[in-house]
Amino acid sequence: MSYKQKIVRTLRFKNKQKIGVLARLISVMSSLGAEMGNIATLSAGELFMVRNITIIVDDEEHLKRIVAEVKKLPDIELEEVVDDVLEWHEGGKIQVVPRRPVKSVDDLQKIYTPGVVTVSRLIKENPKAVAKYTSISRTVALVTNGSRVLGLGNIGPVAAMPVMEGKAALFTQFSGLQMIPILINTLDVNRLIDSVAAIADTFAAIQLEDIRTPDCFEVEDRLTQMLSIPVMHDDQHGTATVSLAALMNASQMKNVNLKKVSIGQIGLGAAGSAIARLIMHYTGQPVYGTDLNPDCLKRHESAGGICMELEELMKKCQVIVATTGIGGLIKPEWVQKGQIILALSNPLPEITIREALDAGAAFASDGKRVNNLLAYPGLLRGAIQAHAKRMHTDMYIAAAIAIASHTPEGELIPDVLDMTLHDAVTKAVAKAALHAGVTK
Amino acid sequence: MSYKQKIVRTLRFKNKQKIGVLARLISVMSSLGAEMGNIATLSAGELFMVRNITIIVDDEEHLKRIVAEVKKLPDIELEEVVDDVLEWHEGGKIQVVPRRPVKSVDDLQKIYTPGVVTVSRLIKENPKAVAKYTSISRTVALVTNGSRVLGLGNIGPVAAMPVMEGKAALFTQFSGLQMIPILINTLDVNRLIDSVAAIADTFAAIQLEDIRTPDCFEVEDRLTQMLSIPVMHDDQHGTATVSLAALMNASQMKNVNLKKVSIGQIGLGAAGSAIARLIMHYTGQPVYGTDLNPDCLKRHESAGGICMELEELMKKCQVIVATTGIGGLIKPEWVQKGQIILALSNPLPEITIREALDAGAAFASDGKRVNNLLAYPGLLRGAIQAHAKRMHTDMYIAAAIAIASHTPEGELIPDVLDMTLHDAVTKAVAKAALHAGVTK
Repeated sequence: MSYKQKIVRTLRFKNKQKIGVLARLISVMSSLGAEMGNIATLSAGELFMVRNITIIVDDEEHLKRIVAEVKKLPDIELEEVVDDVLEWHEGGKIQVVPRRPVKSVDDLQKIYTPGVVTVSRLIKENPKAVAKYTSISRTVALVTNGSRVLGLGNIGPVAAMPVMEGKAALFTQFSGLQMIPILINTLDVNRLIDSVAAIADTFAAIQLEDIRTPDCFEVEDRLTQMLSIPVMHDDQHGTATVSLAALMNASQMKNVNLKKVSIGQIGLGAAGSAIARLIMHYTGQPVYGTDLNPDCLKRHESAGGICMELEELMKKCQVIVATTGIGGLIKPEWVQKGQIILALSNPLPEITIREALDAGAAFASDGKRVNNLLAYPGLLRGAIQAHAKRMHTDMYIAAAIAIASHTPEGELIPDVLDMTLHDAVTKAVAKAALHAGVTK
Repeated sequence: MSYKQKIVRTLRFKNKQKIGVLARLISVMSSLGAEMGNIATLSAGELFMVRNITIIVDDEEHLKRIVAEVKKLPDIELEEVVDDVLEWHEGGKIQVVPRRPVKSVDDLQKIYTPGVVTVSRLIKENPKAVAKYTSISRTVALVTNGSRVLGLGNIGPVAAMPVMEGKAALFTQFSGLQMIPILINTLDVNRLIDSVAAIADTFAAIQLEDIRTPDCFEVEDRLTQMLSIPVMHDDQHGTATVSLAALMNASQMKNVNLKKVSIGQIGLGAAGSAIARLIMHYTGQPVYGTDLNPDCLKRHESAGGICMELEELMKKCQVIVATTGIGGLIKPEWVQKGQIILALSNPLPEITIREALDAGAAFASDGKRVNNLLAYPGLLRGAIQAHAKRMHTDMYIAAAIAIASHTPEGELIPDVLDMTLHDAVTKAVAKAALHAGVTK
């Protein structure tokens, strides 16, 4: 969902102090399809300005076209094109530090022998003390076998590490807890499950990430049964939670009651099937679903959904969510007047916002801002704070409601950098866990 | 080896400003067997001084006796007895932090999507890039199943966590790399091995810790064969490395050539057998060994050692190392004139330094300062820096020589807080790895 196969570059420009130069530059780059990032002034002299302008473009070709065009502009010079993304990732994105560095033999005797024996013995006698005297209670494992990474597919666990570290660093920042990536080098479901179960004592919760379909369902289900800590496959439930939040906001904007309209889910993979199940749990009504894979359809039916062909679904449903990964799949002529359409695939949506609105949709959005990062820090922190033994669908619903109600007027979803959002999700999830009776 | 079943307490004293009060207090506590730790002045007024004095005592009973005696002293008042060990461990001893916190949407796009895709693709195409762009190359797993923790025995992995976090925090501080504890909840050797192998891609090296005998041998051997990263059981090789360093220094002090005298190892468990093997590798001569367990004797013989009865060994050998865990095992009448004796068991040595010297030994030491912490940070960092595929005995020898030659004149071993020590061990080990041909 959150994947965009694009590249980020920072362009350094030097231009004459002259009104309109920057505006013209931005206008050219935007009209060529560059998404504008930060603009930072490096120096402002009497004659010249130097600025770093970060842009997101489709690929190297796209970048070349933009560079060629901006080079033609008068009064401005392109000094450098910097790939500062790689710089960000150098040395990795997370770091382990001692909470209290040792400065003397005295410190050593406390942190290590003989002091540490007291603490181990205390935990042996009173297992609950582990929460207070170790880092286990604030540590989440981020587990992947790298079998379905963003849009890159089965690239293996090692190449998946930058993605895992990114999620871990963001979780750590947004939750105040900590996340440690664990790469598991196997495509065998049993071995994957057993390895996670074997190391689970180290953690307060397990987040599964980028594991291929249908393995992800079995891995999550069986680990949930085996372990007494929350296990959550983010590609399913993080995505479903944020999508439901977006749907709540879109339907409210258009005065549509989600519980009374027909809803269609196009694409029933990990994300799509989880979205459909979460909507059904929320509305109490079946969701209409479609997919090319018969196994996906079977799963949808056994979850209480109704399957139909794509065109028929487009005709029948007032609300449409698409997560197929196939850009342009939805033809404008299929769009019904007054439809609400979330075409969430990245980098290209199933139908662009403009096309959908032009074809008569009441509301349309793509997946650019529908980011799991809105949900998973609060989902896991809420579950851990409530001492949940496992996740429960009510916790995802509670998180979706918290996200939806935390959204500024007129927006589809909130700003992920707003810390009060993550606090609100945490509280809602912890409360839902207590209500659902899944706490220890 | 480094285990002492003692307790640490900080006593707060208020005393009159009067010459001799502190000296008398220390004298009383020392003579009652308290080991003196830090003394910190909290306030120095015109009439009164307030000080925190940290002491290490055998147990609560011992503490009570000392408290009772110091309460009788004139001009001084015991205000409080603080167990600040637990305070040190609150919240755990290691912490994961983002290396660069995200402050803007621009940052997000670099650390996460779409930026991160570039990095994953780069690693997929060029696997060597993983060292530069992830934390894998500076992360060591500290693996235990908690089956033989310090002197506490099989307390399970969770109660072992304080010990693991202590080792991890110290490794992180002394090596500049980082260590993550992984608790594996199984006593089944195959499952333990398979779980470690499954997650090994996450790490640059594996340190095995507190795994019971004889499982520890099989786990280390098989993982070393399976993986192409260094695997080291610290209870064996860390201990052996530091013991050999101590032996080198003791023999040099007494002008004894280790390669020409008969050496006896009393106790052939994980530590003892590794010490015997390392000495044999270093001297090229068999080591005489003794143990009550016939399996240990068999292992010793197949490693090239010679087995004999304890009394016979004491009679035959000029150099004795004991790691039995049995305090007072060596009777003074067994000691030969001119013997070098390292009685390394904690909390009680096989023979005290005083008894051994009184009985005619040329040199005697106990295990109080023979701490693995001198060796394992440099051993692993050296192996990682050299891109070693596995550990090699020459690397342990090189580390022992580095530790021995880094020891101040007249001391048995160096100060563990001396950072130049860890740098010296690292360099020596990396060089030995290259020489031994075990690098990638």
